[in-house]
Amino acid sequence: MQRLEQLIVQLSRLPGIGKKSASRIAYWLLETDRNFVSGLSTQLGEIRRHIVRCRECRNYAEADLCSICDSPQRERNSICVVEHSRDIAIIESTGEFRGVYHVLHGVLSPLDGVGPEELGLAGMYARIKKQNIKEVIIATNPTLEGDSTALYITKQLADEGLRVSRIATGIPVGGDMEYADRLSVARALKARQTI
Amino acid sequence: MQRLEQLIVQLSRLPGIGKKSASRIAYWLLETDRNFVSGLSTQLGEIRRHIVRCRECRNYAEADLCSICDSPQRERNSICVVEHSRDIAIIESTGEFRGVYHVLHGVLSPLDGVGPEELGLAGMYARIKKQNIKEVIIATNPTLEGDSTALYITKQLADEGLRVSRIATGIPVGGDMEYADRLSVARALKARQTI
Repeated sequence: MQRLEQLIVQLSRLPGIGKKSASRIAYWLLETDRNFVSGLSTQLGEIRRHIVRCRECRNYAEADLCSICDSPQRERNSICVVEHSRDIAIIESTGEFRGVYHVLHGVLSPLDGVGPEELGLAGMYARIKKQNIKEVIIATNPTLEGDSTALYITKQLADEGLRVSRIATGIPVGGDMEYADRLSVARALKARQTI
Repeated sequence: MQRLEQLIVQLSRLPGIGKKSASRIAYWLLETDRNFVSGLSTQLGEIRRHIVRCRECRNYAEADLCSICDSPQRERNSICVVEHSRDIAIIESTGEFRGVYHVLHGVLSPLDGVGPEELGLAGMYARIKKQNIKEVIIATNPTLEGDSTALYITKQLADEGLRVSRIATGIPVGGDMEYADRLSVARALKARQTI
């Protein structure tokens, strides 16, 4: 059953899908509603043609501008820098940010050939000047790579007279000190706020 | 981003894939090698057209007969009854069975409209007579439904002069009595064998 085996191999390349899950999905696809399978096939075939990067912020979009850059309700004076498009959905779900975004699609990683150009930073600097942006919130992940990318951007923007901020790190809400890692506790202590 | 949201909804219908994994896969599909995505789309589009049920045993096949029924090396006098095609791979991996299979594609479930006809039992009985089969090993899962399906088939074959057997249940090899459920321990005791 070459075709089925090939499908299992391909499915197991998806993130978070091991050999066993891939096999389960493949067999399920053989038994489920035919229309669902052909629909999924069509969606996969079209997705890369129809979803492009927003001209302004590099977020995924179905048009020249993404729905956020295209919205008249967003504030144009603050910009939030995220690693991935998917991070936008998380920030949007908080309702705490009304500005616009810049999507890096990665972090600085010279060894992998990812420099400022790959992250679209020149375009972002130009946009910051042109749109008279007042605050840049850097929401890259609190990892080694995310932190050094944040530091790099902060340095680049040092002379622009902007407020450049970084999202806070610490103990997650509902988390337990006992199970928190040392670094998170250390950062939570450093970033303590008077109540 | 309607298309992306639709893709996430569809992906989350796959077994074992929740909303979060679906979103992770969808974003990954936007960033990975284009050829991989279009290849997967093509595979999904073709799989249901190219994979059919084996005329003899109802296993998935790319031709009229599956690779097992088509093989001259298999013994034709014993038949192993499994719930799903995927179970065949597991039994084959043990190297303990050299006969042929019958795939039920389910278990008896009158409430869901699954009767003997849906399980292809008439065809199997005919095959047992025609091919002069001597032993039927029922390898349905040791669940309520699997057990009652096994019992039903056993009764149907009672007068055929065959050896009808059921795979053993008990404590899994490498398992721990302490964590085994009561029923498995009970069955393991009942099916104890002299050493």
